[in-house]
Amino acid sequence: MGLFLVEGLKSVTEFIESDYQVDTIYHTPAVLSKLVKISGNIKLVEIKPEELSKISTLNTPQDVLAVLKMPEEQLIKPEQIKNQFCLVLDGVQDPGNMGTIIRTADWFGISNLICSNDTVEVYNPKVVQASMGSLSRTKVFYTDLVQFLEENQVPSYATTLNGSSIYETNFKSEGLLILGNEGNGIRAEVLEKVKNQITIPRFGSTESLNVAVSAGICCAEIRRKANKL
Amino acid sequence: MGLFLVEGLKSVTEFIESDYQVDTIYHTPAVLSKLVKISGNIKLVEIKPEELSKISTLNTPQDVLAVLKMPEEQLIKPEQIKNQFCLVLDGVQDPGNMGTIIRTADWFGISNLICSNDTVEVYNPKVVQASMGSLSRTKVFYTDLVQFLEENQVPSYATTLNGSSIYETNFKSEGLLILGNEGNGIRAEVLEKVKNQITIPRFGSTESLNVAVSAGICCAEIRRKANKL
Repeated sequence: MGLFLVEGLKSVTEFIESDYQVDTIYHTPAVLSKLVKISGNIKLVEIKPEELSKISTLNTPQDVLAVLKMPEEQLIKPEQIKNQFCLVLDGVQDPGNMGTIIRTADWFGISNLICSNDTVEVYNPKVVQASMGSLSRTKVFYTDLVQFLEENQVPSYATTLNGSSIYETNFKSEGLLILGNEGNGIRAEVLEKVKNQITIPRFGSTESLNVAVSAGICCAEIRRKANKL
Repeated sequence: MGLFLVEGLKSVTEFIESDYQVDTIYHTPAVLSKLVKISGNIKLVEIKPEELSKISTLNTPQDVLAVLKMPEEQLIKPEQIKNQFCLVLDGVQDPGNMGTIIRTADWFGISNLICSNDTVEVYNPKVVQASMGSLSRTKVFYTDLVQFLEENQVPSYATTLNGSSIYETNFKSEGLLILGNEGNGIRAEVLEKVKNQITIPRFGSTESLNVAVSAGICCAEIRRKANKL
């Protein structure tokens, strides 16, 4: 079973309170009183700030770093994609984008993320950091997307540059919002399996939006319509 | 006069076609035929890929790197904030966020960005890179924001965590959309000068959204309302 790092008091606290298994917490003396609800199974190791700097992956190390166990890979259960929206990532490569997408999904109450097998590893420290603790509340699955889309017939919406306007799209109460690779978008073989292509109307000159920004705008529109805002 | 770097064929091409002054273009032999409209004032220097790797700031260097002159700092003219929306950044620190905000503004046809003096330097290579060429079409001003807001009475909308819903906000056809620092938001002394506080409705658990994602969602909503989409 693999391990991964979580850094910073806010994120570490959120992972302690989640279903994730925390193995060890390395902390400076300053932060001990702020660590809440530490169960007996978690090893607490007090270290000096300069020692913490050495194991930290951050440019500006924080006062606490936790080592967690990666959960075992799970299969998506049919009920996890019913009666709700899930995000689907096809080959997102930048860890900052992936973490920001997880944080954005969490803001909009989306708790399942389905990724193609070539999407960046979710336990990459930069993904964890950019998710700002939201990974503790998000289930992330890796799978063969083409097969997954064949086997799961729910409404699906692929973000492309020449689809229907998101404002003219009649989002259902459940579905998959699919986002593609930063340079190449969604693969043709994935698009073939998707009923709806959607686009954020453009008013200026750049060719495309950042994938996390696109995710945010589409999630906001899905929630606006569902809640008649 | 300072200099800054632009890397990659797409971005370099967009800067060549812009009002920016390109000083020198370093390129590998492979890319020469793809460089368009090179005026006689631009120095062209052919170098080997391994030499280009040494001067590149990218992990994966591209085949072309341009050195440009920073334009002289300009004052904002009143007509640049009339009859249009401008973005205002109060202390945004992460260069990736700043670049992504410039790219997002460009998508939504917003061409002026007004920054507090402590906002990250726009010619930071990571800002230029994340803007994906959009900086070539965007005017960026640095100023004392408090004074600027006192002197310019246009509708202003500050993104905070407890404002009115963006969906209930009656955006005018001109105005300032204000976004704050990643950790601390907008400074109190700036908020004091702003009439409207606006918030993106939240449906989940995380405390906040990434600032570039917030910018995207707010710009999309401003354009949706203005165009009755």
